[in-house]
Amino acid sequence: MIKKVYPLSKVYRLIEPGPVVLVTTAGAKRPNIMTMSWHTMMEFEPPRIGCVLSNRNYSFDLLKASKECVINIPSMRLIDKTVKCGNVSGKKTDKFSSLCLTPEPASRVKALMIKECFSNLECRIADQQLVEKYNFFILEVLRAWIDPLRKNSRTIHHHGRGVFSCSGRKIKILSKAK
Amino acid sequence: MIKKVYPLSKVYRLIEPGPVVLVTTAGAKRPNIMTMSWHTMMEFEPPRIGCVLSNRNYSFDLLKASKECVINIPSMRLIDKTVKCGNVSGKKTDKFSSLCLTPEPASRVKALMIKECFSNLECRIADQQLVEKYNFFILEVLRAWIDPLRKNSRTIHHHGRGVFSCSGRKIKILSKAK
Repeated sequence: MIKKVYPLSKVYRLIEPGPVVLVTTAGAKRPNIMTMSWHTMMEFEPPRIGCVLSNRNYSFDLLKASKECVINIPSMRLIDKTVKCGNVSGKKTDKFSSLCLTPEPASRVKALMIKECFSNLECRIADQQLVEKYNFFILEVLRAWIDPLRKNSRTIHHHGRGVFSCSGRKIKILSKAK
Repeated sequence: MIKKVYPLSKVYRLIEPGPVVLVTTAGAKRPNIMTMSWHTMMEFEPPRIGCVLSNRNYSFDLLKASKECVINIPSMRLIDKTVKCGNVSGKKTDKFSSLCLTPEPASRVKALMIKECFSNLECRIADQQLVEKYNFFILEVLRAWIDPLRKNSRTIHHHGRGVFSCSGRKIKILSKAK
């Protein structure tokens, strides 16, 4: 299925529930992928996402240098690759190749998108004043993509030490919340 | 059931999956409660949580003034009250009373804990340098509580516009991740 552009005003609906995501970055030697769950929405539109990348991770250096990344959202069917991705470093491994994930060019950033993920958010750093003290990056989403046939995919949620849960069925409740 | 102290080193396991939480704050007139989903872990221990509270919310002023709050984690059984809490302002309403939620004194902060929530995290502001620009507070968790009989409660996840999902069953996958 070909992905469609997803409205920036709706990006918070993907990130707010707290899914484990795969962050891709571009590098001179090879691209990288890392697994991440420490993120939060910070603004609706233009969508801003705050996230923590450990400075022990190779992706930290790549993001800091390139100032760009893609946040790729895997569904439950990718849980094995998502966990494996978090268990190896990209310093010496091409994770696209070792995990059999398909790279797709993004439109606004050099980082690659992961085809198998049902949604991809092209991001650039908007503010890095908390990077040194907290490893905390504030990203702005420049363009978002979604597979319209898989937009209700079950996402992966991490409870620590390899314990995960899958997002359950959706229900609608009358709410004034955005 | 009486709650027990929960190790600070494990707090990330509660917040990382992205649950909707209820933030309680103390105020001179009355305490307040607000519904929040824009939060992320920032450090394991001492646990730090970054979160966005809109400056249009009454709780924003109370948190800024008191520098303390409790993050209360509701399970799915509290979804109706959780949504209602997000639909009214605490400026003129005592939400504990109007939502029939039971206040419990906390041990380290003046903000009250919500008895019906299966976990409560007593927090104080650790860093407010991004409050003015982004409404982003960095909190340190001083003490955490959990109901041992309900520690695997299903949590609530918000997908925008009143659409929620419930966290699904947990699975364990071999992982080097903390």
